[in-house]
Formats: sequence, C-alpha cells, structure tokens
Amino acid sequence: MNDDLLAAFDRGEQRALARAITRCESGEGEPLIRALFDRAGRAMTIGLTGPPGVGKSTLTAALVAHVRRLGKTVGVISVDPSSPFSHGALLGDRIRLTEHFVDPGVFIRSMASRGHLGGVAGATADAATLMDAFGYDVVIVETVGVGQSEIEIAEIADTILVALQPGSGDTVQMLKAGILEIADVFVVNKRDHPMAIQLQREIRSMMEMLDYGGWVPQLVATQAIAAQGIEALWDAIVEHDAYLRTSGEIAHKRRGAYEHRVRALALGALERRVEAVVAGIPDGRDPYAAAHDVLARFGDDAAVGEAPLRRASVRATVKGL
Amino acid sequence: MNDDLLAAFDRGEQRALARAITRCESGEGEPLIRALFDRAGRAMTIGLTGPPGVGKSTLTAALVAHVRRLGKTVGVISVDPSSPFSHGALLGDRIRLTEHFVDPGVFIRSMASRGHLGGVAGATADAATLMDAFGYDVVIVETVGVGQSEIEIAEIADTILVALQPGSGDTVQMLKAGILEIADVFVVNKRDHPMAIQLQREIRSMMEMLDYGGWVPQLVATQAIAAQGIEALWDAIVEHDAYLRTSGEIAHKRRGAYEHRVRALALGALERRVEAVVAGIPDGRDPYAAAHDVLARFGDDAAVGEAPLRRASVRATVKGL
Repeated sequence: MNDDLLAAFDRGEQRALARAITRCESGEGEPLIRALFDRAGRAMTIGLTGPPGVGKSTLTAALVAHVRRLGKTVGVISVDPSSPFSHGALLGDRIRLTEHFVDPGVFIRSMASRGHLGGVAGATADAATLMDAFGYDVVIVETVGVGQSEIEIAEIADTILVALQPGSGDTVQMLKAGILEIADVFVVNKRDHPMAIQLQREIRSMMEMLDYGGWVPQLVATQAIAAQGIEALWDAIVEHDAYLRTSGEIAHKRRGAYEHRVRALALGALERRVEAVVAGIPDGRDPYAAAHDVLARFGDDAAVGEAPLRRASVRATVKGL
Repeated sequence: MNDDLLAAFDRGEQRALARAITRCESGEGEPLIRALFDRAGRAMTIGLTGPPGVGKSTLTAALVAHVRRLGKTVGVISVDPSSPFSHGALLGDRIRLTEHFVDPGVFIRSMASRGHLGGVAGATADAATLMDAFGYDVVIVETVGVGQSEIEIAEIADTILVALQPGSGDTVQMLKAGILEIADVFVVNKRDHPMAIQLQREIRSMMEMLDYGGWVPQLVATQAIAAQGIEALWDAIVEHDAYLRTSGEIAHKRRGAYEHRVRALALGALERRVEAVVAGIPDGRDPYAAAHDVLARFGDDAAVGEAPLRRASVRATVKGL
C-alpha cells in the first residue's frame, strides 16, 4: 500500500502527494516521512501570516504567479481554522488561487486545524516535507495570524512574512502577541489605503523598540490584488534567503525546527503513556511523590531521585521572557 | 528551614501560610506539599470565573462576608494576569476585599500568571492544598475568564461559578470557548441591569442545547455590590456540594483533578529531559526515527518499537470533541 503510494510519488503524480498529505493529517504519515525525509531540504520555505482580512490569499496568489513566471514550481499549504475549500465564507478568497489549479507546477493544499494548533503544526511540517521531497522549489505556508499558530510557522519556514493592513489598529495587538518579533519581512498590503504611510511609520518605530541581532526585517508595501509590489516582496524574500545561507544561520534555524518537531512527536507519545501510568496511582499519595513514581517508570536516567521537581511554569516563564 | 516553616504553619500562623504559598509559586513547594497533603481534602473549594468587569471581586467579597457570618473560615486565591495588589487598574476592585484583611478567619492571596496558564494552575492547586491543610473551611479560587484558565480551575474546584453580566454579549463567546459547559452555578450579576432578564433567558436556552448527565446548573441573579442574592448563591453552592457528596461524584471529580495535577508535574519534568536528549540527536535523521530514539531512552516499556507514533493531535482532537 505504502509501496504503491511511494512509487506513484516517485513518478511525480500529484495525486500521490495529495494522498500522502492526507495520511499525515490522519496520523498515519510516519512510514512516508521516514522514506522521504532525506529528499527534503532543497525547497525555499516561506511562511505568511497576518490578521484575517489582510489579503493573505491574494498575496499568496500573486506570489505564486510571480514565482511561476521565474520558472520555479511552488507548493502552497493553507492552514485555516476550517477547510477553506468546503466553507463558503472563505471560498471567495480562494478563487484567486484556482487559476493555478490546472498548472502542474503549482500544488495547493489546505489543512484544517480542528481547533488544535500543536497538532496542525506537526501535520503542516509533514506536508511541507512532502512537497519539498516531491520537488517543489518553493513551499509557502499561509496561516491566519490570530493565536500562536504564527509562532508555530516560525518553526517550519525559513522566511516569515508578516502582513498587516492599514487602518486596522492590529499592530499593538500583534506586538503584544509576539508576532512582530518573528517577521523577516513586513508586508503592508493595500498600500493605496490612506493610512498605509502611517502603518509603515508605526512598523518602523516598533522595529526600533526591538533588538535585531543579524537580519533587520525589510518592509515592503504591496497592492496584491493589482499584483503591485510583488516583485519587491520576492526580492526581499530572496535577500533574506541569501542572508540565511551566507551567514550560516539557516543550519541553526533548521536545526531548531527539527528539534521542535522531534520533541512534539516524542512528548505526544510520552503524554499518552504518562496518562496510563497516572491512572494506576493509588489515591492519597501526595502529587509530588506520585509524579516521582511516574517518572521512575520511565527508566533510571529519567528518575529524578530526591531532587525536587521543578515546575514546568518556571522554565516556561523564563522561556517566555 | 522547612521545619521552622512547618512548625509555624502548625501553630496556625498566617505568615507561614503566606510564605509556603510563595515557595510554591517559585517552584520550591514540593517538600511542603509532601508534608501537608494528607491534611487537605476537608475544604469546600469553589471556583469563580467570568469575563473582566462582571464583578468577580465584588462577588467574592460578598461571598466571604456571607461565609464569615455563617461562622466558617475562608481562603481566597485570586488568579490574575498581573498581581492586583500592585497594579492600579485592578486595585479599586480589590478594596472591597480589604475589609477582611484584619479578620484572621479570612486569608486572601493573589497569584500572578506571568502569561503561563499551565504553570499558574499548578501553583494555584498547591496554594489551594495549603489553605485547605491550614484549616480553612472554604477556599475560593477566582480567575479572569478569558482564555483557558477557567477550564483549568475546573480541575481544582469542586463547584464552579460562572458569572456573566447583562448586556455584554459575552455568552456566545463563552459558549464557543467551552466555558458555559463547566458551570455548576450561573451567576447573573448586576441583576438591576435592564438586560438582566434577557441574559437569564439566553442562559436557559443555551442550557437546553447542552446535555447534562447528573447535576443541572442552577441560575442565580445577584447584585453583589448591594449584597443581594448572595444567600441564594450560597444555597446553590451548598446544594451542589451536597449533590457531589450524595451522588459520590466528588470522588470521581477529585480523582480527575489529582491525575491532572500529577500528569502536569511528570510531563513538565519529562519535557526538560526530552529537550536534553533531542539536542544530542545527529542531523539528517528523519524526525519519526529520531522520536523513537528519544523514547528508547525512557525505558523499555516506553519504547514504542516498530509501532508508528500516533500524532498528539489525533488524541487531542478527540478529547476536544
């Protein structure tokens, strides 16, 4: 079954890629990723996030058209709270992408989140690996930036685009949510809007508040619906990609994403096992002693002995600083 | 050091209780909880949640006054995004509680969340255990209901009060967030508001959409600032408590809370260990094989062998249904 699928994948059948991604979504992707992982790593991966209504789909469609004109192939993963292809409200936005549906150099896939962001991140990483292994030159991951999903794409994509729209007042909100810090390129879309200049000023003054080590984010103004500014946006992406490669930062970045991914898989499995062990603990045992009992079941080197358990919160708070 | 603290705790010194809670907050509470856990379990624990502005502090103050008139002692844990005692914006609300500051039968403690809800839940559970072990008859945990913190208190408190205010339009939002499902008692505060009747109607029609197995939530209208409806609220709490005890559900509920707490402690420790192991994995290994490598380090019975790793997302999605 997997052999057939892999053979079809090898022959470059898009249908096989689609089926492989579906398997990953339903938690059966392991054999496929194991077989195909070492073919991935060539693609340029781009994450695009921003608040609802900013025009992410239009930006994606314009980028796809531009990338195709340059002779490159492109895969698009659209992560949305609900599958956009089956929900009317979002369908209108998607129509711009449909012009690419018949182009074999473009592959478009939406992933439904079903309300669980961590899980989507894992399935999205698998889908990106598969598109990359399939041979797409560019992989674009588009997510609605409302929660922490945009932080998760920072673990998948090499270059992060944060799109903002003039007059929305979203910037302070996004700064608070830690979204502005992950931007490699800011995109002010709808640049014809009267507030577009003010938004650019706001972004620049906020950038002054942040401490950039190496790459300083670029700011590009676009009018995606008229395909304006897309060449400048692509140039900024290419420049960031070149920076990652010449500085050697790309290895560091991809290693971080890789560790994040392995951790999520291992912890998911451990979580289920911990749950089973905890269910067997007798009543009345104090929770710390019980936690030590649980840990003792996970091997000698996992036993914390007499050392007190540090709270997860303490670590997480520091990490969040 | 701990012996001194425990001796002072035994003598009933509130200062020792305060210091013990501080230790739990900073991740050093293990020896104290281990020593005191078996004294806890007597208190009636009440969780109070609701959107900002609904009057949770006023409700708490009114409940405290009522409980004191009944001759019972009460501990209050106020979980807020920032410590209310040091931040002006919230201080006004707190002033109603200060009348109880000199009453030795009342102990009030605020816990700052520092942006990490999981961690606060752990520290809050420890604080509730300590107040219970110290001898308070009633422990009230008050949290701002904006994210998933209100779901977390369901893991700590025996009885959950969800407070709503008329004319706020919060109900649909809270239904979506899964907050209404955890209510044992709905409190419509500010019952003098012209929209109060409509809110009660809304709550009743939403209750019809939910499937209640045993206890059907009560609905109480209050005007906390005038101490109106507080007796009816207390009666509803007592009735729910009696239901839990006569039905035997309390054992089931407390067992769930206990397992949740042990799991969080164990997983926090495992998370740090997984992180360290993952850091040592060589590049180029596919993420699933790497995850199996990590799991193999956690004992034979943790090794998943050739079985594929199920995605955490799959389980979590089911749990979320």
